[in-house]
Amino acid sequence: MTKVHNFSAGPGILPAEVLKQASEACINFDNLNLSLLEISHRSKNYEKVMDEARSIVKELFEVGDDYEVLYLGGGASLQFAMVPYNLLRENGTAAYVNTGVWATKAIKEAKLIGTTSVIASSEDKKFTYIPKGYEIPKDADYLHITSNNTIYGTQMQAFPKSPIPLVCDMSSDIFSRKVNAKDFALIYAGAQKNMGPAGSTMVMVKKDALGKTGRKMLSMLDYQVHIKGGSMYNTPPVFPIYVTLLTLQWLKKNGGIAWIEKVNQQKADALYNEIDRNSLFYGTTAKEDRSKMNVCFLTNKPELETEFDKLWKEANISGIRGHRDVGGYRASLYNALPLESVKALVEVMQAFEKKFA
Amino acid sequence: MTKVHNFSAGPGILPAEVLKQASEACINFDNLNLSLLEISHRSKNYEKVMDEARSIVKELFEVGDDYEVLYLGGGASLQFAMVPYNLLRENGTAAYVNTGVWATKAIKEAKLIGTTSVIASSEDKKFTYIPKGYEIPKDADYLHITSNNTIYGTQMQAFPKSPIPLVCDMSSDIFSRKVNAKDFALIYAGAQKNMGPAGSTMVMVKKDALGKTGRKMLSMLDYQVHIKGGSMYNTPPVFPIYVTLLTLQWLKKNGGIAWIEKVNQQKADALYNEIDRNSLFYGTTAKEDRSKMNVCFLTNKPELETEFDKLWKEANISGIRGHRDVGGYRASLYNALPLESVKALVEVMQAFEKKFA
Repeated sequence: MTKVHNFSAGPGILPAEVLKQASEACINFDNLNLSLLEISHRSKNYEKVMDEARSIVKELFEVGDDYEVLYLGGGASLQFAMVPYNLLRENGTAAYVNTGVWATKAIKEAKLIGTTSVIASSEDKKFTYIPKGYEIPKDADYLHITSNNTIYGTQMQAFPKSPIPLVCDMSSDIFSRKVNAKDFALIYAGAQKNMGPAGSTMVMVKKDALGKTGRKMLSMLDYQVHIKGGSMYNTPPVFPIYVTLLTLQWLKKNGGIAWIEKVNQQKADALYNEIDRNSLFYGTTAKEDRSKMNVCFLTNKPELETEFDKLWKEANISGIRGHRDVGGYRASLYNALPLESVKALVEVMQAFEKKFA
Repeated sequence: MTKVHNFSAGPGILPAEVLKQASEACINFDNLNLSLLEISHRSKNYEKVMDEARSIVKELFEVGDDYEVLYLGGGASLQFAMVPYNLLRENGTAAYVNTGVWATKAIKEAKLIGTTSVIASSEDKKFTYIPKGYEIPKDADYLHITSNNTIYGTQMQAFPKSPIPLVCDMSSDIFSRKVNAKDFALIYAGAQKNMGPAGSTMVMVKKDALGKTGRKMLSMLDYQVHIKGGSMYNTPPVFPIYVTLLTLQWLKKNGGIAWIEKVNQQKADALYNEIDRNSLFYGTTAKEDRSKMNVCFLTNKPELETEFDKLWKEANISGIRGHRDVGGYRASLYNALPLESVKALVEVMQAFEKKFA
């Protein structure tokens, strides 16, 4: 098979060895002579998967037993509702920073649940930068931020020092770099960008942040119900969670966060250096807020886009078309993308310049 | 590999050819040289999967464009909340029939949303029968029933003629027999028992039943939002939906509902006949309400259970331990279970009788 350089923005690339293990588990899981797709989630073999998938998150985040890890169905979009449902007190206020489409959606759901205040936003410049220096209201129940904005290619290089519980949607850069997880009351991430396939969402929550809203709660929207059930209150997304575990094991085995942070820095440097050097391309965001996960760029000769498209397709590059809201190109450099793929893209950009500049 | 007879109650057995296709898609999907686990759900290749997965449900149920099909994350348990959230008017009433643990959970969630009336129940006899002859209130917003009760092994052989919209949890017997789907306003099913792997839930809903509650709705809990998004309002559980499509294609190719209904009848007859004939076993439910999907039985020599367990394990039988609420044995005869597996179990029951009766 020809090697494809997969820059998909999500669901995104997974390590080849993980895909191989996933493929095998579809036929014979854990030497049971049964497929992982047809065994009980209550079997000992699967309970072990769930236990490990939960504990490896705490290990990678270096947090203790004051945190709980859940894998839930429904996607990060369901968390946009579950976060305020579980943390926003009746008659309380939630504070949000708006850095893009996903943050806007999170704000919309919070407003349906209670008083929600947008304390900072970069909407004025089409979300091309990360707001800084805003004041965080001390009386709000929590502050919600989005660490990385897939569509616009911006990323928080530092997190706000928050006097109130800090909640972060890390869907598109989780486990890509070192963060002080203990500074957060809740971190969530749809798995399909940087930690596994589509179908499950990881939620890590500090236990003492819960149970304070005064709200009567629907079971499936109540983190405490899922905690009590060991993330198996109901049948979980069995296979997606298994593949997520495999992906996190791959990360740990290769050197963990310290290792991947270096690799991700190399990949981002290689691509941003080329964008800045190449006379036919330019980046779309404030330089200091550039995302190491999603690199957005445009060509200053839009009439040549078809020519550029031809070149990268010939080089077996896939998934670098920009989001419809931004246009141009977006190369997603998730953990599993090798440096070699970035080099292939850089070569194509150089060949394009040579031919058309 | 030794063939395992998989009687798991759910997640349950899937066809061998489906597992093989699923395994291949983990490595190379649709000749893209990419895994299905790492491609965008917005790719043409996957949009085709979603379109077919939705249309094949309408085809198998023989309904027209007045119905919509959705695949959602979160499990049937999330539907326990979404059904009343979308159908129970503010100040309206919902009617429920309680036939087991899952119906009880559905009722609990409905009560959190609005006035809910349990119009019939078999709780008085530990859910060993299906209530009949109850009156359905004409002024309720809908009637919710559970077609098959996995834990207790009961099944509705006929559905109530309802003057109000009929809603059915078909999680454990969907597509196992002919039903007049047009009699239902909404049918839902967690995929992992009879139509695919864990991780997605199918909802088929009549469009004109929606939008009447007067409730301000959270996006992810609003069927109309998901309908508008073509079941891709957010990233769907990509792989579970694909495997569900493969399973339904397998069903259709082999002769559809008419074919599987016959096969399921043969399997159920073979096992119930043996239970009734064998002096060491007896069924746990009212005969007229026996489930063709989940066959629950006990031995009248409980002191010999360990001996029986030894025999079926030697015969490579898996997953027939009864639910903790009922004890004894439960053999689940989902669509993908071959008649040959039932014969293997019957032989073991006969050998057990020969040895110990």
